[in-house]
Amino acid sequence: MRDEPKTEPKAVAEALAGLIGAGNVLTGAAAAAHFEEPRGLYHQKALAVATPRSVADVQKLLAWANGAGVKIVPQGGNTGLVGGQVPDRAGEVIVSLRHLRDVREVDAEAGVLIVEAGLTVAEAQRIAEQRGLLFPLSLGSEGSAQIGGVLSTNAGGVNVLAYGNTRDFCLGIEAVLADGRLYQGLSPLRKDNTGYSLRNLFIGAEGTLGIITAASFRLYPRPVLFETALVNVASPAEAVRLYEHLRAAGGNRLTSIELLPRFAIELELKHELIERDPSASMSPWYVLCEFSLFGADAPGALAAALEGALEKGIVTDAAIAETLGHRALMWKMREAISECQTREADSIKHDVSVPVAAVPALIEEAIASVVKLVPGIRPFAFGHMGDGNIHFDFLQPVGMEGPPFRSQEAEIHAAVYGVVAKLGGSVSAEHGIGQMKVHLLEEVKDPVALEMMRALKRALDPNNILNPGKVLRG
Amino acid sequence: MRDEPKTEPKAVAEALAGLIGAGNVLTGAAAAAHFEEPRGLYHQKALAVATPRSVADVQKLLAWANGAGVKIVPQGGNTGLVGGQVPDRAGEVIVSLRHLRDVREVDAEAGVLIVEAGLTVAEAQRIAEQRGLLFPLSLGSEGSAQIGGVLSTNAGGVNVLAYGNTRDFCLGIEAVLADGRLYQGLSPLRKDNTGYSLRNLFIGAEGTLGIITAASFRLYPRPVLFETALVNVASPAEAVRLYEHLRAAGGNRLTSIELLPRFAIELELKHELIERDPSASMSPWYVLCEFSLFGADAPGALAAALEGALEKGIVTDAAIAETLGHRALMWKMREAISECQTREADSIKHDVSVPVAAVPALIEEAIASVVKLVPGIRPFAFGHMGDGNIHFDFLQPVGMEGPPFRSQEAEIHAAVYGVVAKLGGSVSAEHGIGQMKVHLLEEVKDPVALEMMRALKRALDPNNILNPGKVLRG
Repeated sequence: MRDEPKTEPKAVAEALAGLIGAGNVLTGAAAAAHFEEPRGLYHQKALAVATPRSVADVQKLLAWANGAGVKIVPQGGNTGLVGGQVPDRAGEVIVSLRHLRDVREVDAEAGVLIVEAGLTVAEAQRIAEQRGLLFPLSLGSEGSAQIGGVLSTNAGGVNVLAYGNTRDFCLGIEAVLADGRLYQGLSPLRKDNTGYSLRNLFIGAEGTLGIITAASFRLYPRPVLFETALVNVASPAEAVRLYEHLRAAGGNRLTSIELLPRFAIELELKHELIERDPSASMSPWYVLCEFSLFGADAPGALAAALEGALEKGIVTDAAIAETLGHRALMWKMREAISECQTREADSIKHDVSVPVAAVPALIEEAIASVVKLVPGIRPFAFGHMGDGNIHFDFLQPVGMEGPPFRSQEAEIHAAVYGVVAKLGGSVSAEHGIGQMKVHLLEEVKDPVALEMMRALKRALDPNNILNPGKVLRG
Repeated sequence: MRDEPKTEPKAVAEALAGLIGAGNVLTGAAAAAHFEEPRGLYHQKALAVATPRSVADVQKLLAWANGAGVKIVPQGGNTGLVGGQVPDRAGEVIVSLRHLRDVREVDAEAGVLIVEAGLTVAEAQRIAEQRGLLFPLSLGSEGSAQIGGVLSTNAGGVNVLAYGNTRDFCLGIEAVLADGRLYQGLSPLRKDNTGYSLRNLFIGAEGTLGIITAASFRLYPRPVLFETALVNVASPAEAVRLYEHLRAAGGNRLTSIELLPRFAIELELKHELIERDPSASMSPWYVLCEFSLFGADAPGALAAALEGALEKGIVTDAAIAETLGHRALMWKMREAISECQTREADSIKHDVSVPVAAVPALIEEAIASVVKLVPGIRPFAFGHMGDGNIHFDFLQPVGMEGPPFRSQEAEIHAAVYGVVAKLGGSVSAEHGIGQMKVHLLEEVKDPVALEMMRALKRALDPNNILNPGKVLRG
């Protein structure tokens, strides 16, 4: 017979302390930092925050929770943007993986890195760099985002074009299942066709099927030279033409291609997030693009390709980074976009994707619909153009108060997602579902896919203790 | 109440005819070609072979089979090497996907191809080529192997180093579930983080979780120039050094790197599979390597990199393909290896992988163990060195009869797999489990992984009608 659910905070904290030691159980003020996600949109107290110091501790925690019927919310660096890492209801326990920080293996010869879930992305990047190799994930939150979190959300970022999402360079994982069993799938192998691809089930499952405790990654040759440019284009349509031109010229040397509106540079200058304008001249839109070159490559490949684009009339001007400082400024500008939005005004955001060729239609039609709804709203569409992934944000109109702006959120979402649906796109390109998009997912996803997801959830977490209410309704 | 299993051949054939038309149900001699896999190791009669002409037909077949308790074996081009595509017991029905051949979409601008399961890999390659793009899967059986089959086995081949296995460039799938429901997941999107990665569950599941009826693939920029060389190296250890050297020099321009013993060239010349020796000179081992160049690249990158390797003493000589004909001869030599083995003698084969750096130890130790067991046996290790994936074959000793050779099969397998296990490798790098390795999988796989696989199988195919006994014991 199952125990009655233990939801009395003191009893739960005592039970947790008995399992992993009182020093590893946070309550009160020490726990509070874990209750809210970065944008402050989701806030919910947990009964306690458990910070296990070993994989065995995670196993003990889940075996106990599964028996006791206590709901668990796994948390990494708490940088997620859809509320997946904080409770959506009272009475849950947060399990923070931050103390699982072992580097289990770095094999430069084989190009394999095996690390635990609590390491940050930036730390993984540095370990690879010290060995002359590349850990290809690169995203704005890399200083805080943890390995377990970026796997659980299948994070994207600015290198997806060349290296894929986190899923694509993960070779294997270790995970604790809902009942405390340990799945040991830390393969260092490039190829292994022995049964179902279990790692791919946990990757992107947002902690609802198990808790990832470690992972093995493929490391890549480190480019010897990056060629970077900030290119003026007249419109998103010209940006797509530029993408095709650079892809034909550079093939897989083209490792990043980001679309940015002039508004980004203006706001960052205004809020002093960049010291000077990194662009060559004024333009309504820019493309930040980068070639990664290796030993056998002749330098100047990007400049040559851009000259061709200039001749074809695809681009109107370009700043090619001539110094490391100029390149750093270009990327700083790209990475400071979220921050410049936050400083300027409230905003309503969308992380959507469409086929690359449909990016111009997405931008034009979604802006038209939303501006009609909220005159004066400030559209801010930018992002990973080469993946068809646009971060489609709308800033509060100048002079409008917060509450009337927020009151139109549902209509704005409906307008944007309507255009996305028409273009065959996705309502969550890289941020996941979390608690933010659970209902939306029910509306847009193939019903058979939802049935299969529920069947998988029941098979692997029959008592529904793992991050309930995230991805799928509780 | 479920119907009693219908295993009376005539009744089953009639039921199938009622579902999809008598013209699409093969029995007798017409069906027999589907009963045996290419090496003749597995042969089993089916009650009938159903050849549905539409996805709706596949749905009807499975809904009926699920209700009637009839076991189904999905079959594509029948090129698999582990017996996954033929029945392992009497009383089953083969469903051949060969008539599902629609090209649903070719979007060159977006780089997306959507095709049905019965198209061959070579046909998909040609469609991409006609649009100036690349469908990156390339393997010996590409003229017969079908899309549904290469997805179900997550096929590899000679371009995995650059483009990954089939899983890695598949964007989405459509599949019929065990009870006839249709999962519609044909996304053309590069990024879509909306729930569990269902496509990855069907890819590599060898038809045990559903029948894939169509898939969407990412197409890649087509290289404008291939630079190809057949390089002399003294040993597999030097081949690994060469791989590292080429990777550092060429980065992701290096798209193929295959290891071959001199024995391959000798046997192919003997059996007149190649008209002349494509190598520069005699060497115990060769590396067949290829750079893919794009518009902005200067030609000569591979030659420059090989000169560096010559200076470092890694390579002793090299033939660089100076004509398309010479390049074609090099690849013909690579692709004719299976055929030259078949013509020469019986062989006992292994498709294994280890971390790349362990390839030399694998080759040395496995040969030593097996030669001790069977003096005179002829080792033939070759394959996808950059993936750590060696096809480790052993040819019948000259003068030994077939039966005594075959009688030592289990010991030979044990010797090879013992070395693979010691080196942290996989017993099936790219061919899958099928019926050949079901028991082996139970020995080598993490027990929790096996439990999870069984739980997933029960969740998605509760009546165990889909390819029972393959991958997992029936």
